[in-house]
Amino acid sequence: MQIGMIGLGRMGADMVRRLRKGGHECVVYDLNVNAVQALEREGIAGARSIEEFCAKLVKPRVVWLMVPAAVVDSMLQRMTPLLAANDIVIDGGNSHYQDDIRRADQMRAQGITYVDVGTSGGIFGLERGYCLMIGGEKQAVERLDPVFRTLAPGIGAAPRTPGREKREGTAELGYLHCGPSGAGHFVKMVHNGIEYGLMAAYAEGLNILHHANAGKEGQGADAETAPLRNPDFYRYDLDLADITEVWRRGSVISSWLLDLSATALLDSPDLQEFQGRVSDSGEGRWTVAAAIDEGVPAHVLSSALYERFSSRGEDDFANRLLSAMRYEFGGHREKS
Amino acid sequence: MQIGMIGLGRMGADMVRRLRKGGHECVVYDLNVNAVQALEREGIAGARSIEEFCAKLVKPRVVWLMVPAAVVDSMLQRMTPLLAANDIVIDGGNSHYQDDIRRADQMRAQGITYVDVGTSGGIFGLERGYCLMIGGEKQAVERLDPVFRTLAPGIGAAPRTPGREKREGTAELGYLHCGPSGAGHFVKMVHNGIEYGLMAAYAEGLNILHHANAGKEGQGADAETAPLRNPDFYRYDLDLADITEVWRRGSVISSWLLDLSATALLDSPDLQEFQGRVSDSGEGRWTVAAAIDEGVPAHVLSSALYERFSSRGEDDFANRLLSAMRYEFGGHREKS
Amino acid sequence: MQIGMIGLGRMGADMVRRLRKGGHECVVYDLNVNAVQALEREGIAGARSIEEFCAKLVKPRVVWLMVPAAVVDSMLQRMTPLLAANDIVIDGGNSHYQDDIRRADQMRAQGITYVDVGTSGGIFGLERGYCLMIGGEKQAVERLDPVFRTLAPGIGAAPRTPGREKREGTAELGYLHCGPSGAGHFVKMVHNGIEYGLMAAYAEGLNILHHANAGKEGQGADAETAPLRNPDFYRYDLDLADITEVWRRGSVISSWLLDLSATALLDSPDLQEFQGRVSDSGEGRWTVAAAIDEGVPAHVLSSALYERFSSRGEDDFANRLLSAMRYEFGGHREKS
Amino acid sequence: MQIGMIGLGRMGADMVRRLRKGGHECVVYDLNVNAVQALEREGIAGARSIEEFCAKLVKPRVVWLMVPAAVVDSMLQRMTPLLAANDIVIDGGNSHYQDDIRRADQMRAQGITYVDVGTSGGIFGLERGYCLMIGGEKQAVERLDPVFRTLAPGIGAAPRTPGREKREGTAELGYLHCGPSGAGHFVKMVHNGIEYGLMAAYAEGLNILHHANAGKEGQGADAETAPLRNPDFYRYDLDLADITEVWRRGSVISSWLLDLSATALLDSPDLQEFQGRVSDSGEGRWTVAAAIDEGVPAHVLSSALYERFSSRGEDDFANRLLSAMRYEFGGHREKS
Repeated sequence: MQIGMIGLGRMGADMVRRLRKGGHECVVYDLNVNAVQALEREGIAGARSIEEFCAKLVKPRVVWLMVPAAVVDSMLQRMTPLLAANDIVIDGGNSHYQDDIRRADQMRAQGITYVDVGTSGGIFGLERGYCLMIGGEKQAVERLDPVFRTLAPGIGAAPRTPGREKREGTAELGYLHCGPSGAGHFVKMVHNGIEYGLMAAYAEGLNILHHANAGKEGQGADAETAPLRNPDFYRYDLDLADITEVWRRGSVISSWLLDLSATALLDSPDLQEFQGRVSDSGEGRWTVAAAIDEGVPAHVLSSALYERFSSRGEDDFANRLLSAMRYEFGGHREKS
Repeated sequence: MQIGMIGLGRMGADMVRRLRKGGHECVVYDLNVNAVQALEREGIAGARSIEEFCAKLVKPRVVWLMVPAAVVDSMLQRMTPLLAANDIVIDGGNSHYQDDIRRADQMRAQGITYVDVGTSGGIFGLERGYCLMIGGEKQAVERLDPVFRTLAPGIGAAPRTPGREKREGTAELGYLHCGPSGAGHFVKMVHNGIEYGLMAAYAEGLNILHHANAGKEGQGADAETAPLRNPDFYRYDLDLADITEVWRRGSVISSWLLDLSATALLDSPDLQEFQGRVSDSGEGRWTVAAAIDEGVPAHVLSSALYERFSSRGEDDFANRLLSAMRYEFGGHREKS
Repeated sequence: MQIGMIGLGRMGADMVRRLRKGGHECVVYDLNVNAVQALEREGIAGARSIEEFCAKLVKPRVVWLMVPAAVVDSMLQRMTPLLAANDIVIDGGNSHYQDDIRRADQMRAQGITYVDVGTSGGIFGLERGYCLMIGGEKQAVERLDPVFRTLAPGIGAAPRTPGREKREGTAELGYLHCGPSGAGHFVKMVHNGIEYGLMAAYAEGLNILHHANAGKEGQGADAETAPLRNPDFYRYDLDLADITEVWRRGSVISSWLLDLSATALLDSPDLQEFQGRVSDSGEGRWTVAAAIDEGVPAHVLSSALYERFSSRGEDDFANRLLSAMRYEFGGHREKS
Repeated sequence: MQIGMIGLGRMGADMVRRLRKGGHECVVYDLNVNAVQALEREGIAGARSIEEFCAKLVKPRVVWLMVPAAVVDSMLQRMTPLLAANDIVIDGGNSHYQDDIRRADQMRAQGITYVDVGTSGGIFGLERGYCLMIGGEKQAVERLDPVFRTLAPGIGAAPRTPGREKREGTAELGYLHCGPSGAGHFVKMVHNGIEYGLMAAYAEGLNILHHANAGKEGQGADAETAPLRNPDFYRYDLDLADITEVWRRGSVISSWLLDLSATALLDSPDLQEFQGRVSDSGEGRWTVAAAIDEGVPAHVLSSALYERFSSRGEDDFANRLLSAMRYEFGGHREKS
């Protein structure tokens, strides 16, 4: 079927390529003309304006947005007057699910159906396929089924879960209608929250291995520093590239994130090209906020998020206050 | 080559089977005669006593212990007089790596080599192979190479890490000589610490999805309970079996633990056959202790551990004290 | 000056008494007639309806609301038509500061000034005075100064901070104009967030002392339970009532919450009259939400909050999933 | 009575002064001759060597050690030959309680009694008195009662806990015999663990207040940074010196650590003279290790400890790995 794609960044452009390879017809648009031209050179129809984009799409239109969450609302505002009843707009980016609920209501009033799709897959999606978590009205989701089926990895991408054959549905194909508006991004949000937690678990564990030679360093004995009680227990120089590699086969902690860690550590054992200022793009925060709203504990997911904040120095004032208190009650001066 | 196996529980018996299938000759012993007989019926040589066991092994012997960590020392004490110089004893269980260091020293004094092997794989190891993390002297580890090679999953068990072909070593085969005595169990310990963290990340995230319908329940308004500010944002009834299934293909958080979660939730969406009292078998604790000794943060790994403690009610007194304080300053009575 | 008080619960009634003792004239109202009558018997003017209440107040009126956060909006809606320009309405309860911002805007449109006051002090406030954190317009806050001065503990309630004499302001008296609308409840919110953290620190620490005899209990040795490596190090039977008492004098951790803990433990060393289901009334959640919005780490405050959630069983599904995963990969059955 | 003091640092010298003021006779020694001379100028008997020190003490001797934990063992080794049966040695520093158990056994073999005393009070102890947590044999502790009574703050240092009058004991005086050898330092260890947690709670909360103006800063909209959903809710410029001051009177979170925070923030609102590299001197680590040994959760105390580790950059490698993973799966480059 025909799909219009707005937003030709890392993800959007590759999704267009995967859709085309799957036999779909695409029309593409991006504020950045170069991005449009790049796909035009591959034989895909491009547009130079939103107006042209909407005009090139056959009614009822299917428009997929793959733009930063912060610009979705302004994009919808510009585009809505150009759309018609029965058109479908899909937000495949990282919107907050609460915005989805609002937008779906607003667009429903004009006869347009808004579908939210959480998309995971990163830069490997073109080849591996994209895991799609979908929210919105059943009818629209069913209409889009051929699109989702093409973008998703397909059943062959993983060994079958024992017993799954008894059950229908698309989950095994790598896409899932999770529920009404917002459900797609809600599930994607928690997916990313879990991702933060998994990443932090590997990072903390590998950091412990990285410091397994702590007993080799000399340590002073004064009132301010805790000496290592048994330095002999920490004299290992471990090869993290090999360790992450060995864990990839047969261990309980094998995963795609471990695969990526093994790649990164093979290329650069000390990771010196990174500073360790870790970004966060919203979903981790929203996941924790949801946990709090629901009143369920999320120690690990929160800690993973806070470690990113700390990596960017956001704990600076708090730490200075700790040193100030120590100075006040004990006359302790900071060590540098 | 010939290997003697002591401890024919879940893991030990299957390792014997995998070794035999790989062309090795095994002699087995267990305090439980039934376990020995079961393998004898499969054509494997059994022993009725430690003495018989040691006598059946050709010198220099290779003895693999697959017994609970708490009985390794007594087993070594009984067995050592029956061993001779150049014999190798492997502890493949979940010993504390600091015990390995001590034991290796003790046995070295008698000419026996002690090798520690952290073994991951669980009940699937017979088929998938076991991930082996090895500590001890290079010479002994090299002598055991055929054994490790058979037990490990082999290179085909995972797609090759890009660039790995330029590098030698056994990590890709699923076994690794990590360092001197204790290094094998040290790496396995941290492996398990990470495992706790990964499991907790999935568990917390899925719990948030499980409670995504919190806005559907009625909530009272009084001074003791925080009302949900926006119940409309929490009205989703999500199918966790489908969601864990869809994440298995193409998503960033795919992993073996996720595969297992999908299986568990397919079989039992509410997991009612579990009470939620989660055991811990030591390595998670030791990982956190190592982090503290090294002075490196481990928020996530610690939280994962503590959540298990709390699941068993170990926070009970602390919680009663919180309620007592609230009563003291605010006259707040507990709600039941 | 004259103040009208709506809400004669624990806090409201005692604040009226403290105001009266300080020479102010009070008019009181509550949906519960008994509460009104109780104060009338002490010679304070009561009202049987909002209308009567507003009529008895001299213009420009000063109305103090001391009602559950969840009913403030409906109360304001009923009352606003009865108020006039230049009246002041104070919300002294535990409102979310974001509601304050909205309400102040709404009431400003009608010439009424809304002031938010975070009030700490609990059931001891009548005697000790109340710590007041105030948000709103400067002019209104200044007009209310005599009220705040009476309610607050006064400078004698704590030894003077060295150097404070050089600085003006009311902070030393126990009340503070923190900033524009919402600032009072924002500061109170974080105050309560800190309170959660402090309480949890004591509770965790005392729980460690409570279990200092862990080495006295017999412990089995199997593959599921981590044995205590050195039981001899945990053979203390500690008297927590005495320990909290001794910490009250001269130690770094002396505090009012410690005083209360000492009282609670003196009365009931095992706290058996509490179940350990710990309520939370919103501010702890909002504090964590604010930390996330600001992007600053709050490991401790979040953990304190989550421990309360767990105390009420909200981690139940997560724990069952952990046991389910353990069963899937290791065949581990739960221990009961 | 006569007491010998070894170690005339911050704490030791002031304890000598307080003892002398309380009518006790002191003999002092320190490797640093200047420290000895300073007290000699105040009329206190000094010694130039351990031998002279021991010789000046009347048998049975009472020797109080106030030296870094790391040098206690070597000091005991040097001193033991100079001591005699029935002498008492007190370790008043921050020793690990497990060392106390060992030392008490070793010295008991020679007829010497070892008493462990956890001492809290910091640089204010001379004036406020020291909170003393004592472990060891009853008889020796009773013999030392006059010393403890003088050093402790006394009953007047805090308002009496309601109901305390019915109960005997010294806890109200500010010193307590907690149990057998090690019990004093065990309780002091947990005291410090709690201290870490309390400090972190204040630091995190005040950091949230410090960033309450986050909505005033401009924030870009891209795929890497989570934008603030409602900047209008974070436009407060709060005065932390005033806020900590106002909390000192009447609030639930008043404490000595809050008093010190108010002092620090009054002197230096931005705490720019501190870098925020926070030391830890051992007890926080040991408290967490004890929690893990006992199998009780300690989310808050651990987080407080880890925040100190992170403040010193010990999370650096972990953070670089997080950035590396993000680069691998999403092509995300770090922002600087």
